[in-house]
Amino acid sequence: MIKGIMPPIATPFINNEVAFEKLKENLSRWNKTELSGYVVFGSNGESVYLARDEKLKLIEFVKNNIPDNKNLIAGTGSDSIKETIALTNDAAKYGAETALILTPSFYKGQMKHEAFIKYFTQIADNIKIPLLIYNVPRFTGVSIEAETVAELAEHKNIIGIKNSEENVARLSEIINLTSKDFLTIVGTASVLYPGLCMGASGGILALANIAPNECIQIYNYVQTDKHTEAKNLQLKMLAANKAVTAKYGVAGLKAALDLTGFFGGEPRSPLSGLTKPQKEDLINILKKAEIIK
Amino acid sequence: MIKGIMPPIATPFINNEVAFEKLKENLSRWNKTELSGYVVFGSNGESVYLARDEKLKLIEFVKNNIPDNKNLIAGTGSDSIKETIALTNDAAKYGAETALILTPSFYKGQMKHEAFIKYFTQIADNIKIPLLIYNVPRFTGVSIEAETVAELAEHKNIIGIKNSEENVARLSEIINLTSKDFLTIVGTASVLYPGLCMGASGGILALANIAPNECIQIYNYVQTDKHTEAKNLQLKMLAANKAVTAKYGVAGLKAALDLTGFFGGEPRSPLSGLTKPQKEDLINILKKAEIIK
Amino acid sequence: MIKGIMPPIATPFINNEVAFEKLKENLSRWNKTELSGYVVFGSNGESVYLARDEKLKLIEFVKNNIPDNKNLIAGTGSDSIKETIALTNDAAKYGAETALILTPSFYKGQMKHEAFIKYFTQIADNIKIPLLIYNVPRFTGVSIEAETVAELAEHKNIIGIKNSEENVARLSEIINLTSKDFLTIVGTASVLYPGLCMGASGGILALANIAPNECIQIYNYVQTDKHTEAKNLQLKMLAANKAVTAKYGVAGLKAALDLTGFFGGEPRSPLSGLTKPQKEDLINILKKAEIIK
Amino acid sequence: MIKGIMPPIATPFINNEVAFEKLKENLSRWNKTELSGYVVFGSNGESVYLARDEKLKLIEFVKNNIPDNKNLIAGTGSDSIKETIALTNDAAKYGAETALILTPSFYKGQMKHEAFIKYFTQIADNIKIPLLIYNVPRFTGVSIEAETVAELAEHKNIIGIKNSEENVARLSEIINLTSKDFLTIVGTASVLYPGLCMGASGGILALANIAPNECIQIYNYVQTDKHTEAKNLQLKMLAANKAVTAKYGVAGLKAALDLTGFFGGEPRSPLSGLTKPQKEDLINILKKAEIIK
Repeated sequence: MIKGIMPPIATPFINNEVAFEKLKENLSRWNKTELSGYVVFGSNGESVYLARDEKLKLIEFVKNNIPDNKNLIAGTGSDSIKETIALTNDAAKYGAETALILTPSFYKGQMKHEAFIKYFTQIADNIKIPLLIYNVPRFTGVSIEAETVAELAEHKNIIGIKNSEENVARLSEIINLTSKDFLTIVGTASVLYPGLCMGASGGILALANIAPNECIQIYNYVQTDKHTEAKNLQLKMLAANKAVTAKYGVAGLKAALDLTGFFGGEPRSPLSGLTKPQKEDLINILKKAEIIK
Repeated sequence: MIKGIMPPIATPFINNEVAFEKLKENLSRWNKTELSGYVVFGSNGESVYLARDEKLKLIEFVKNNIPDNKNLIAGTGSDSIKETIALTNDAAKYGAETALILTPSFYKGQMKHEAFIKYFTQIADNIKIPLLIYNVPRFTGVSIEAETVAELAEHKNIIGIKNSEENVARLSEIINLTSKDFLTIVGTASVLYPGLCMGASGGILALANIAPNECIQIYNYVQTDKHTEAKNLQLKMLAANKAVTAKYGVAGLKAALDLTGFFGGEPRSPLSGLTKPQKEDLINILKKAEIIK
Repeated sequence: MIKGIMPPIATPFINNEVAFEKLKENLSRWNKTELSGYVVFGSNGESVYLARDEKLKLIEFVKNNIPDNKNLIAGTGSDSIKETIALTNDAAKYGAETALILTPSFYKGQMKHEAFIKYFTQIADNIKIPLLIYNVPRFTGVSIEAETVAELAEHKNIIGIKNSEENVARLSEIINLTSKDFLTIVGTASVLYPGLCMGASGGILALANIAPNECIQIYNYVQTDKHTEAKNLQLKMLAANKAVTAKYGVAGLKAALDLTGFFGGEPRSPLSGLTKPQKEDLINILKKAEIIK
Repeated sequence: MIKGIMPPIATPFINNEVAFEKLKENLSRWNKTELSGYVVFGSNGESVYLARDEKLKLIEFVKNNIPDNKNLIAGTGSDSIKETIALTNDAAKYGAETALILTPSFYKGQMKHEAFIKYFTQIADNIKIPLLIYNVPRFTGVSIEAETVAELAEHKNIIGIKNSEENVARLSEIINLTSKDFLTIVGTASVLYPGLCMGASGGILALANIAPNECIQIYNYVQTDKHTEAKNLQLKMLAANKAVTAKYGVAGLKAALDLTGFFGGEPRSPLSGLTKPQKEDLINILKKAEIIK
C-alpha cells in the first residue's frame, strides 16, 4: 500500500557517476525505519540528469536492496507518450511497482484539461503497473486542475497523485472530488500536517531522506488524533525542510545527507554543491530542528 | 479581540453609488451571528474604487450600526506612507479600531525586506490604532517573507497579519517565527481549517459574507478538537468559496449575497456583474454546499 | 504635438518633501534641449508616493517653468474611475494638457478587454483633456491587448498609448491595428530605435532625464534614415538605460541625475538610495556610455 | 554560413507516426527558395515527442533531401549534459552540421549564470559540431542573461544564439556584448525586422515554414536599406505569425502548412488539431496577410 511516508531518494554520485555502494548504505539505514516505500527519480533524484540505462540499473539495484513490503515507485514520465510507456514498462521489468508520472509541460499554452486527459489516459492504458500523477508546478511551470484529476481518477490504472504545491486548497479540492480509494499524497513536507488534516493518504517528501522518523511521527500523530503534537513537530521541521528544498535545492539535500550520517556527495553537473557559508547556515538550521546535534 | 471569524464586507452600490440603507440591512443580519468583527475596505470591499470621503463616511456608518463588542477594522493602506498615515488616523476618528494595511507594491523590484520594514515601521510609529499587515500577492504581485513579518512583529503597534495566500507553508512559517500574541489570520476560506490547525488565530474571509455560520462552525470545531467535523465542513465549503473569490471575484460574491438574502447588487464600474450562465453555475454550487436550498 | 522625446521627470525631494527650487533648476536645463514635452507622475516620478495636493501644486509649478511649446502631460490614473476623472480635470485646471492614464490593475483576473473598454471610455467621456493609455506590466501585473487598444483608439479623446514593454511585437501590433493619427509611444529607451523603426511616434523615456540629447539624436537619425547611426547610439545607451530603470530603479535614476549635473537626491521612503558599490557601478556605466566623463 | 532565414521545420505525422514521404515533398518545395538552412527539432518540430531513434532517422533523411549549401541544424539539447553530448555527436554522424541546444531548465531556481556556464562549456568541449544556444523562456520558464551569453561566446565552439523572446532589448544587449562573428539570431518572426535593425544575423522562424519568401524578403530589404518596405511587410506578417505560434501553437502551424500547399497534418498526441472555428479564423488571417488567396 502506498500510504504513510516515502522519500524521493537522492541519487548519490562520485565523480559524476552513480555511486551504487553508497546508495546501498543509505538504503540499509532507511530500511530500518517505518518508511513505507521509496521513490526513485523524483525531482530530488536528479532524474533529468540520468541516462535511460542508468535509470533501469538503479531500479534493479534499489529493488534488490529493499524488503518486499516497501513499495518501489519509479519516476518515468517525460513529454513523450511513447517514451513514457516504453520506459515505464521496462522499469516494471526491473522491479518498479508503481510509476510516478510528471505532467507533460513543454507546450505550456496547450497543457490544459484536454491534453492532460489524453496524455495520462493513453499512458495508463498501456503500462503494466499503476500510475501516480505527479504535479510539481515549481519545476514544470504548469499545473493540473482538480477537475482534471477527478476525471483521470476514474481510470482504474490511475491510483493517485503526488501534489508538490504548498497550496493546500488544491490538495483539498482533489480530495473532495475523488473517491476514498484515490491516493492524494502530499508532495512537500512544508504542508505535511495540514495536508494530512485535509485527508491526504501520506507524503512523498524530500525531508524524509534526512529526517524519516520525524516525518513518520507527524503522520502517526494524525492517525492517533494527537493534533497538538503534530502541529508542534510540523513547525519544528519547517526551516529544515525549506533548506533541503526551496532554499538550497538538491545541493542542500545532499549536504544534509552528509551531515546526518548518510552519503550525500555532490549533485551532478551543471548543479553545484553548497558554498561554505551555505553549509554553515544549513548546520545551524538542522541543529535548531534537532535533526543533528 | 481580533480572533474568530470576520468578513471583509462587500460595499453595496445602487447605480454606482454607495447604498447605505442596504448595508444597514446586511449588517443587522450579520450582527446576529457570532462574527467577531468586520473589515471595511478589504479586497472584496472594492476599496480601490472608493473615494476618500466615501471611505470615512462608510466607517462612521458601519460603526454606528454594529455592537461595541465587534471589532471594526479598516483597510487604509496605499503605496504612500504619508497618505496611509493620514487616512488611518482619520479612519480612527470615524470609528475604526484597527487598520489593515496592504503591502506597498508599485515598484515590485524594490518591494523587499528593507522597504517593507521602513514602510510598516514608519506607519506604525505614526498611527493611533493598531496595525494588521495585509499580504495578498494575488492582487499586489508582491509577497512579504516570514522573516520580514517576524521583524515587524516586534513593533508594539503591529499586532498581526492577514495572509491571503493558499500557501499554508508561509502561514506556518509566520506562526513559527512570531510570538503567541501576534495574530496570524487566515485570509482565504479555502485554507481555513488547515490554517487553524497550524495555529492561526482566526479568519478574515470573503465567504463569511454569505456563510458566516459555516465559517464560525469550522473555527469552533477546531477549538473543541472536532477535527473530522472541521475537515468535512471545510471540504463542503471549497467550491462555494472558490465561486465567490478566484472564480467569479467581487461580482460572484455580490451575486451570492443576493442569493442568500443579503443585498449584493452590481460591483462598481469597471467591474461587471455575472452573466446569466455564471449565475446559474453559482446557484448550483451554493445549493450543493447547502448554503441555499 | 506629442511627438519626439519626452522625459517622465523625476520628482526631487529634500528630507522627503518636494524640492521645488531643485525642480526649477532641472527644468531650466531640460528646457534648453529639443525635448518636446514633459510627463509629471510617470512611474519614475514616484507618483504613488505623492499626495493629491502635492500633485496639483507640482503641475502648476512645472507649467510655470516650461515654455508653451512643450507639452505638459500628467499621470492621473488610479483604479477608481471617479477619482481619475476628478484628478484629471483638476490637473487640467492647473495646466496639464494631456493625461497619461495607467491601466487599472487591482483585480487582475478581471482586468481584461471588457473592463479596460469600460474604464477608459468612461474616463475619456468625462475629462477635458486628451488621454494617453499607459501600459506598464512590470509595475501593474496586467497588460492591455492590441485589439483592446484598437477599439479604444476609435474614441476621439483617446489619442495614443505609452507602451512600456520591451516586447516590440505588441508595440507593432498596436501600430498595425490603429490609424496613423493614433500615437504609439515607446515607453522604455531599451527599445527606442527598434520601436521607431516599426513606426512609433516618439518616446517617453526615463533615460531622457539624464541623456536627453542622445535620445533625441536616435529619434532624429530615424527621421533622416540614418539607421546605422541610430543602431550604434541605441547599443551605446543600453547599459545606461538599464541602470536607471530595471537594474536600480528610481534610486538609480536619481543618482544618475546627480552625476549628470541635475539634482537627483534620494527617493521618497520606503524606497532607499543607492549603496556605495551600486553608485560606483553606475558611474562606470555612465562613463562607458559617455554620458559622463 | 548560418545567416539569413531558416525554418524550424514541422515534423509531419500520419497516424502519430513520422511521415517521411510528406516531409520529402515539403523539403523539395522549401529547397526552391533562398532559405539558408533548416532546423530539425526546434520547438515547432515537436522535438519533445520524438524518440531518439526517430530523431536520428529524421536527420539522415533531411540531410539526404536538401542541397549541400543549406545548413542542417539539429536541436539536440536536454537537461542531461551526458545525453546531450551523446545525441549531438550521433546527430553529427547522421548529417547535422550545427547543434541548437536549449538552456537546461528543470531546476529553475538554480538555472542561473554558473549552471549555464558549466552546462554549455562542458557540452561545447565535447561535441564535434558547433553549438548555437537556444533561449526560449516561453517554453522553458528560464532565461539566459546577456552577460552569460557574452561569457559563453568566448568559447570557440559556441557560435551563436537563437533568442526566441519578443523582448528586443535582450537581443540588443547580446549583440552589444559579443563580437561581430557571434551569431545573434531572431527566434520569432514577430520581431524579425526590429531584430535585424539591431544587428541580428538572421532568423530561425516558425513563419518561414509557410511564408519563406516573405521572411526572406524582410531580410533582403534590411540588407539593402529599404526600411519602409521592411516595416510594411513586417506589419503585414504579424497576425499570421501569431496564429502559427502563440495563438494556435504547433496545431496552427500544421493547419497553415496544409492551407499553403505543404503537408501539415495533425500534431502528435497529446496535442490536438485545430477546431473548425479556429481553422476558419486561421484562413481569414492568412488571406489578410496574402499568404493564401
